[in-house]
Amino acid sequence: MKSLQIKDKTLTLIQRSIPDRQEGEALIRVLMAGICQTDLELLQGYQSFAGVPGHEFVGRVEESSDRPEFVGQRVVADINVGCGLCSWCLQGDQRHCPQRSVIGLRGHSGAFAEYLTAPTGNLHLVPEGLSDREAVFAEPLAAALEISQQIHIKSTDRVAVLGDGKLGLLTALALRVFSPHLVLIGKHPRKLELAAAQGISTHLIESGQNTIAKAGPGPFDILVEATGNPQGIDSALDYVRPEGTIAIKTTSHARTELDLARITVNEINMLGSRCGDLDLALSFLERKHLDVLPLIEAIYPYADFQEAFDLAGTKGSKKVLIDLQSSIP
Amino acid sequence: MKSLQIKDKTLTLIQRSIPDRQEGEALIRVLMAGICQTDLELLQGYQSFAGVPGHEFVGRVEESSDRPEFVGQRVVADINVGCGLCSWCLQGDQRHCPQRSVIGLRGHSGAFAEYLTAPTGNLHLVPEGLSDREAVFAEPLAAALEISQQIHIKSTDRVAVLGDGKLGLLTALALRVFSPHLVLIGKHPRKLELAAAQGISTHLIESGQNTIAKAGPGPFDILVEATGNPQGIDSALDYVRPEGTIAIKTTSHARTELDLARITVNEINMLGSRCGDLDLALSFLERKHLDVLPLIEAIYPYADFQEAFDLAGTKGSKKVLIDLQSSIP
Repeated sequence: MKSLQIKDKTLTLIQRSIPDRQEGEALIRVLMAGICQTDLELLQGYQSFAGVPGHEFVGRVEESSDRPEFVGQRVVADINVGCGLCSWCLQGDQRHCPQRSVIGLRGHSGAFAEYLTAPTGNLHLVPEGLSDREAVFAEPLAAALEISQQIHIKSTDRVAVLGDGKLGLLTALALRVFSPHLVLIGKHPRKLELAAAQGISTHLIESGQNTIAKAGPGPFDILVEATGNPQGIDSALDYVRPEGTIAIKTTSHARTELDLARITVNEINMLGSRCGDLDLALSFLERKHLDVLPLIEAIYPYADFQEAFDLAGTKGSKKVLIDLQSSIP
Repeated sequence: MKSLQIKDKTLTLIQRSIPDRQEGEALIRVLMAGICQTDLELLQGYQSFAGVPGHEFVGRVEESSDRPEFVGQRVVADINVGCGLCSWCLQGDQRHCPQRSVIGLRGHSGAFAEYLTAPTGNLHLVPEGLSDREAVFAEPLAAALEISQQIHIKSTDRVAVLGDGKLGLLTALALRVFSPHLVLIGKHPRKLELAAAQGISTHLIESGQNTIAKAGPGPFDILVEATGNPQGIDSALDYVRPEGTIAIKTTSHARTELDLARITVNEINMLGSRCGDLDLALSFLERKHLDVLPLIEAIYPYADFQEAFDLAGTKGSKKVLIDLQSSIP
């Protein structure tokens, strides 16, 4: 099969054999996959990654021994594959298994390939009404919704999302369900307009205006830091009230510098947030709690992967998808 | 009256007039005051402080118009003096009033002087059974106990305090009430022995051994970072489990560098923690939930303030107190 591969910070299209299906795994034909900021970081050397990237995808099950009823069905997947034996796995949360592999990220080949394997226990059936280009948002949407599973967001809380990148935009649309008056704070008028079109309040940070706490909105009870910038925490602290909460979504591998005294003196609660519940995400998509289609920048055929990655890495780009069903050169 | 003063990073003993008592304030004769790490930082230029330092103290009320029954009584004080009008003050929490002054720290003369003033609403009567040298611990003990007011510490939680400095030691003794098997992790055998003498489990980090997570104890559910070192967070992350909590007590003004990805990937909860409830602290002291007397390094007469500050700044020093009732040169 054809597959993308990252090696030595280079992305290439290679020919490789279809992955062996282990016991309890399904073989999945990939239909569509999304390029995440983390994929771009892997390409820059994050985690010294070498292998097949791709962790946002929708596919169709081709083979499964333990769940034959899945064959022919469209699925999305939890990307964390636990050992099944540790205390985390035994309580049903593979996300923090210390021995875990992560599809497309660590020790498990990803979705920028014709086929991949995944444990059937990680699969979630895609409701019929959802198109591939919607279902491919399930993984990042689950990550966005994870905040609502960690913090009790009440309708009276003043909530903001800082950062109108791919994840920031998605997070604003997702959390608005819990917080109708949520504010999205960003630097890209085009992105903010997209959010506004779905009824979200927005605030534009004018260029050159970095610390705008006094002029800008806030202070907020809950602020989601989704700038994608290691220094995003510094800005986040400008917007949050004493005893408020900052949920951190940025997973940059660059080191962050911050003034810890601001956190202690104001007794700020900083909470790291990562992957979430795919079922909740699929439910949000199926019930149209948000419309993800305007978040798509472009859909590329497989052959144009380089162009797709280049566009995804362009400042201000929305979600770039790759159609794996397209004919392969 | 005689008073210490910090100006241009220099500590001097000066003569100044007794402070004017404002409406609602009491005039307090200082009996004893403790030197805090923050006092040492003020002397190094933190917050460009200029004035009379001292925020850990016990004194005797000499004058009070609105609470005449306080006159002659020994008191300790909440150091945060709010505006009385903002939403924080109106809900009874001056600690986060944006207009607040802070006794001995910001806009309000402190306790290294014969007299100071404080709002009577900030005063707490010292129970008769407590000596001055015990009561002077009320302020830092309240700060140590603040963690128990922010986080629900259950007896089954694995809890550790990282850092056996003045505040770390006090915090371990205080939180042990909630967590009998709490572990104090430090670098000073002498300090750890003090804690062990009060029944606390300890772990010594051998010198040169910085990241000892694999060899050391843990992982912990709740870790109190009390290293006093801006890089203490990095070490704290080695000891805490995924989805665990780090309570940050270090208020160093130096900037901290950290790997944010460790916080997001492991979904760590980081919580800043500052001043606490003086009444709770006095109750802990009165009921002998902990014995603070072994935490005293030395008590100096007022005249030897320079020696006292030098000793307090010595690595590994315990709490240094100044007896303000001693004869003044």
